[in-house]
Order: sequence, then C-alpha cells, then structure tokens
Amino acid sequence: MKQRIVIIGGVAAGPKIAAKLLRTKSFDCEVHLYTEEDMISYSGCGMPYYIEGMIEESEKLIVRTPEQFEEKGAHIHLKKRCIKIIPKEKKVLMLDLETNEIETVEYDKLAITTGARPFIPNIENVHLKNIFKLRRLQDSINIRNAIKKAKHAVIIGGGYMGVELLEAFAANCLHITLIERTSHILSIFDEDFSELIVKNILEMTKEKSNVEILTSETVIAFEGDKKVERVITASGQVIETDLVVLAVGIVPNTEIAKNAGIELGINNTIRVNNRMETSIKDIYAAGDCVENYNIISKQHVWTPLGSVANKQGRCAAVNIAGGYDTFAGVLGSGVTRFMNFSMSLTGLSEKDARKSGFETISATLTQKDRAGYMPQAQSITMKLVVDRRTEKILGAQAIGFGDADKRINTVASVIMANQNLSDLYNLDMTYSPPYSTSIDPLHSLVLMIYGKLRRS
Amino acid sequence: MKQRIVIIGGVAAGPKIAAKLLRTKSFDCEVHLYTEEDMISYSGCGMPYYIEGMIEESEKLIVRTPEQFEEKGAHIHLKKRCIKIIPKEKKVLMLDLETNEIETVEYDKLAITTGARPFIPNIENVHLKNIFKLRRLQDSINIRNAIKKAKHAVIIGGGYMGVELLEAFAANCLHITLIERTSHILSIFDEDFSELIVKNILEMTKEKSNVEILTSETVIAFEGDKKVERVITASGQVIETDLVVLAVGIVPNTEIAKNAGIELGINNTIRVNNRMETSIKDIYAAGDCVENYNIISKQHVWTPLGSVANKQGRCAAVNIAGGYDTFAGVLGSGVTRFMNFSMSLTGLSEKDARKSGFETISATLTQKDRAGYMPQAQSITMKLVVDRRTEKILGAQAIGFGDADKRINTVASVIMANQNLSDLYNLDMTYSPPYSTSIDPLHSLVLMIYGKLRRS
Repeated sequence: MKQRIVIIGGVAAGPKIAAKLLRTKSFDCEVHLYTEEDMISYSGCGMPYYIEGMIEESEKLIVRTPEQFEEKGAHIHLKKRCIKIIPKEKKVLMLDLETNEIETVEYDKLAITTGARPFIPNIENVHLKNIFKLRRLQDSINIRNAIKKAKHAVIIGGGYMGVELLEAFAANCLHITLIERTSHILSIFDEDFSELIVKNILEMTKEKSNVEILTSETVIAFEGDKKVERVITASGQVIETDLVVLAVGIVPNTEIAKNAGIELGINNTIRVNNRMETSIKDIYAAGDCVENYNIISKQHVWTPLGSVANKQGRCAAVNIAGGYDTFAGVLGSGVTRFMNFSMSLTGLSEKDARKSGFETISATLTQKDRAGYMPQAQSITMKLVVDRRTEKILGAQAIGFGDADKRINTVASVIMANQNLSDLYNLDMTYSPPYSTSIDPLHSLVLMIYGKLRRS
Repeated sequence: MKQRIVIIGGVAAGPKIAAKLLRTKSFDCEVHLYTEEDMISYSGCGMPYYIEGMIEESEKLIVRTPEQFEEKGAHIHLKKRCIKIIPKEKKVLMLDLETNEIETVEYDKLAITTGARPFIPNIENVHLKNIFKLRRLQDSINIRNAIKKAKHAVIIGGGYMGVELLEAFAANCLHITLIERTSHILSIFDEDFSELIVKNILEMTKEKSNVEILTSETVIAFEGDKKVERVITASGQVIETDLVVLAVGIVPNTEIAKNAGIELGINNTIRVNNRMETSIKDIYAAGDCVENYNIISKQHVWTPLGSVANKQGRCAAVNIAGGYDTFAGVLGSGVTRFMNFSMSLTGLSEKDARKSGFETISATLTQKDRAGYMPQAQSITMKLVVDRRTEKILGAQAIGFGDADKRINTVASVIMANQNLSDLYNLDMTYSPPYSTSIDPLHSLVLMIYGKLRRS
C-alpha cells in the first residue's frame, strides 16, 4: 500500500529525502514536502559568493525548482508552516501563510528537516532597517542590494559566515568592522591559528585599510533614524555604518518537535539515533535541526553543515523506505576562505581535544605547499594534533595561500580509520614538484612529533 | 666505538640516510658518501620544469651542496665510482674517475643507494649528438641548451617523464612528436583515462597544432650527420627533428650488488626486507635501486619515485643506527600534469586490479571540482575501483583542469586503512562552495557503485 511521507523543511536535507525516496523504485510512496518559504532546494553556503557578486544571479544557487521536483513525482507545498505535530494521530497541522487557513495532513512517516534560523540577539533597536540576517535566499538578495549604496558595514560575529561576509564586503570596497564577542574569530581553530588568520586578513587588506576586526567586544545598541546609522559597543565605541549583518550564530527550528514530545539534545537540537530516527516512532529528522555525534570526542555536538545534511537526508530516506542505513557521525571537518587565503580543519583542535580529556601533543609547521623552486609555490601553515598516549591522530588545521585544504581530508580519513602517527607516516602520498614537496608537510609534522616524543 | 657508514649514491636516498644518521645523537658514527657525479642531493623530479624555463637556474634544484653536508659532519666523496663490494672483508673498492686510482674503503655498515639509469634502447645511431637522456642535472642543462635552437623535438616514451617533457617543450613552442611503443601513453592509468589524457593534451595544443602523439609505434633508427636529423619508425614514418629525448624507462644500478652476491628481485632491483636490509648482513639499500612491496596487490613491484626514496632512506638510517623502523610499502600513488591538466592516481588501476586477481567494480564520473556556480569551477574526471566481493577500495584515478589530485591522497588513506565503500561514504570531508561540491565527487562515486551493486 502506498505510504504517505510528509517532509517539513525544504532547503537541503528535506529535498534530499524526497529525491532519494522518489528514486527508490521498491518503495511505493507519495512524497509531500512542506516549506514556509516560496522556494526549495538552494545552496545556503553559496550566498556569501552571490552577495560578493561572484555569482551573477541568485537563481544559480537553486539546485532544483519546485517544478522540477513535481515532475519527478513529489508534491511540493510552498508557504505552509507546520504549527503542530500530533504523533498519536499521525497528523500534522499546516498553516497556509497566504490564506491563514489550517490544514490537517496525515502521514505514515514524517521527516523533520526544519533547519535552523539566525539567532537574533536582544540588542536595543535590533529591528532597525538595514540590520540583516543571512539565512534565506531573499536575505542575500537584500544584502546585495544594500551594499550597492553602502560605504561602511558592520558584521557581528566572527564564525565561518562572518568571515565569508567579510570577503564579500571587502571585494565590494566597503569599509568593514567585524565585531566578535569572544577573544578570537573562527574559534573553531586553535588560538594561534585564529591569530594568524587575523594577521593575514589585515595584511591582505592593508592597502585599502578597509577591514577592522574587534574581538572581546560586544554590541549593546544600534542607533539610527528608521535605518541603522551607528553601532554602540560595550567598550564605548560608536561605529558609523550603513548596514549591519547579524552573524552571531543560529538556533535550531525544533519548537514543533519539542511540543510534540520528541526528545531534544544539545542546544535544543532534535536527538536522533544513527538511523536518523527521533524518539517517536515513524518520525525522522535530518539536517541542521539535529544533534550530531562527534566520532573522535565521542560526544554529542551540534555541527550544522550542508554536507552533513545531504548525507543525513539520504540515510533517513533509506530507513523511511524500509532499508537499513546508518550515519556514522561527524569529525567537524570544515573549510572556508578569505580571498585566496584558505582555512581548513578536521577533527579536534588542540584546545577541544584537551577539553575532551585527551593528553595532546602537537606540531605546527609553515612551509611551501609544493617544491620551493616552483614559481607557484605558496606558504601554508599546518598543525597536527595527536593523542600522546595512543599516538592516534585527533585533528589537523591548515591555513594559507597555497593548497591548504588539500591535505585535510587525508587526515580526516586517517582519523576515521582510527589510525596513528606511524600509519600516517607510512601513507604513500602522491608527489610531483607542482603538487607537493618530496617530504609532504603531513609527513614532516609526523616527524616533528616523533622528535618531541624522542622517537627516532 | 665510532662506526664507519659508507653510502654509495648521492641523489635522494643516500643524502637522506647521511642527514638522518648525522642527526641521530645516540649513534656514534663517521658517514662517508660516495658518488660518481660532481654533485649530490638534487631534485630529479624538478628537471622537466627547469628545462621548461619555469625555474631559472639549475642550482635551485640542489637541495644541499656537498659543502653543506660536510659542515654537518659528513664526508662527501665526489666523482668516485664503486666498482666492487667485498662483503666478507666489509670493504668496497672505489675508482677515482679523475685519477683512475682505486681505493679500498672499509665499512661497518654499507648503504647502496645507487638509483637507476636511463634505459638506452638498441637503436641504430642511438649515440648521435642531440639524442639525450634525462637523469642527471647536467642532462637537463644540455637539453635546455639544445631546445633554444630547436624547432622540432621527438620524445620517445609516454610515461611520466615523457609527458613532463612534452609540457616543457610545448611551452617553448617546439613542434613535438611523442612516440610510445604500447597502445597508450601513461599506461599506469586505465585505458579510458589514457585516452582522455591524449584528447585533452591535443585539445590544449590544437591552436598551435604542435603536438603529435604516436602510439603502438617503435623507433627503428636515427639518421643524421653528426647530430640527429631524422627518426625512422617501424611503420615507415620519417620524422625530421632537431633533438630526441629517450624516456623509455630506467634500469636499476645494481650490478655491483649482484656481483657481491646480494639477492635481486623484480627487474633486477635489490631485494630488501621492510627494514631496508639486503640479503647480506650490514648491507642496506634504499631508493630507486630497490624492489618495492605493493600493499594492495601484495606483490613485489618496482615503483622508483622520489617520495618513496626519502622514506626508505630514513628507515634505513634508523636501522643502521641500531633503532627499529619499517617501511610499509607502496600504493603506487603518483601525480603529474600537462600545463594545467592534472593526472593523479593511487592504488591499482582496474586493469592492474584484475591482473592481480581481483573481481572489480568501478565507477567513473565527470563533474565540477567545486560548486558549479563558482566561477573558478573546473571539470574533473574521477574513477574509483573497488573489490566487488569485499567492497574494499582498491584504487582511484583523477584527471582534469580542476583540483584533480586533491582527493587522491584521501583515497590512498582509505586504502592504507583497508577500508571499504561504506567507510569512504561515511568520511566527513570538508565542504564549502569554493572547495568542493556539497556531495563530494568521491561520495558520488560510492553512490554510483552502490547503485551498480543494487544497494540502496
């Protein structure tokens, strides 16, 4: 008998579930995807590059249109908000955002892929015009329009998104002040790396001297007549600005899950098992709204990322369709950039490894990414973090103008396989002068740690 | 008591052994390195880029000068050829190439790092002027001088070196004919990849139409008055040329080892165990002259590569110094390029996997190397080869204008850890639009193979 699958949420995990179910010939189902937005299936990660102007049209970020999904057999319901899940009756209530009518929708299996929303800090006048958040495609269109007339922008928050917006704005010749509450931007990296990142960003922008980075600084108020004109900080700075983007973090959209009695995890994310099942039968969840399992620290974390959402969506779909699939968890692998400066990491930073109880040993190395005599050789800085007692690899960080990200997934794989220093040293990596050094930086890092361990 | 360590050969493995021994404070030794050449420690792999002109001075390829080594405490003996090893007396005979005097040198431990030399085919007039080989730094200086006055060059042999010379010559606007005896160039790749490589090389050079690639073709004679003027092929072609480079392969310099009674392996390489010990006590060998163990096929092979030589040198040094270290073997990882077109592989090609008795399943995919909407996105073609029965990853190949090599070492690591398809799919890789696609090509390849295996 045809099963009715209802999916709530339409950015990444939701469309992935729909697409995978529709490809599963053995599973007879009707797929209904509901979203509050007027579009589905777009690349949230690409928005900073659209704002920058590197991508001409916002449509390029749309992976598939609702029409393309309908052609494959899905039923796409736009501008409908789920206001209640009633697990006992296997029903959800949907509010039509245009007509304000409430519809009752039955499901055999339900997938919650509601994602997350920007956290809006409780700051005076936070709702003034030209104070933006960035989550939906329309947000990026609004910001791109606003920077055309702007000279000064303030970015609040120094995470991945803050740094990506910094590039977007700097490329558009704005004067930018980035304000970070903690002592370091990109605090997912170790502090020495965060400091190197700031040094390089300032160095790259020093000719125009259009980038200012304030750390350990908080915004206490916005001022302006109708639109934002000034940002007031706790230390008393008054920053004149034409626009502000709030990039201080996100919160998972899990209120309806919580109200339905579904167990929540860290940061109010939805707790799922490795088959993407929630605590209530026949209700699955995937994507930015769910809790993740960190494979190295063996702790539950929240690492909302597009690549993870895609894999979780596929896993949920296989299980919804009666198959068996598991999602192994995350390593916290990530990459971003500022202009040509790459920043990449996997596994645990040294500080996080220590927080997780590991006795760490690490090495840091700055060298050329390929044979030094090759004209295209560029400097990279890499760090390898190892558990001193077992010599297992715990994490790696790489930054620089060269191929900094290239070696990070190699380390990710070494970590996933639970391998140690000697395994990494024995890894037979490709070498040719345009691509690497005859002793790869990863191998040099192993040898440096051997030295510290007084091994030959 | 101070031990006398004698090293024969000075390019990569030999200097590595010397350097490592001199850094080993716990080992009291005197290090003597002998070489036939008038220099040591240079990057053979960089020579094509010096010939191209990308590197201005040949000195840039010298890693360390004899003087720098002597300062560290080594005794460097240039222009001395080892003509005999007498294991019973722990002596070697050295011929001074300048004075023709023979010296007897005693050793406590001996390291043979004699490398390999170009194979010179038995072709009529092969010793004519302007017929070059490429092994020593002086060869590359000779070739670079010769191309200044040349219009047409013939490269014989379509391996890594042949293709690297093709770039060097094409960049210098020569008309080039590359002649390969077998049916495909770069036959280390599967045939579909070799064909794509040729297609792309010809496409890249079609405006000048200055590159011609002949396969299944043999050279039977060279003609010319003093210097080479024509190359005659078995099919009857007569190719006018100003110079020829022989790149038809190399042979290991193992005659002195053989004469000393040291056991040889495949292709007359020196057989060593995983501690780089030869069959005779206190004699070690490392680098291009030794046999390798392929970790996947579990067969002995000969894969002479600079990165391997470095690691073997280090391993030999640790053991010479009384420590314990092993060299795990090779995967056959390699990378090269033609202009901006990268070619990279690790593990077994599908044809080699089948020859080794595996029942293979594979997938090939052409897609963008990063989010398709990013302007810098470039096309790459990747292939993943898997053992059908165990689903273990056996090898991967990647070619293209984009980041083709980037993912190969990740696969190398998966292979080293003896992991399977599902492990690779579960690998948490970095994602950001400028660096990858939200579903990485490696993951797409896994899903394609899942489809072929009719798994969900």
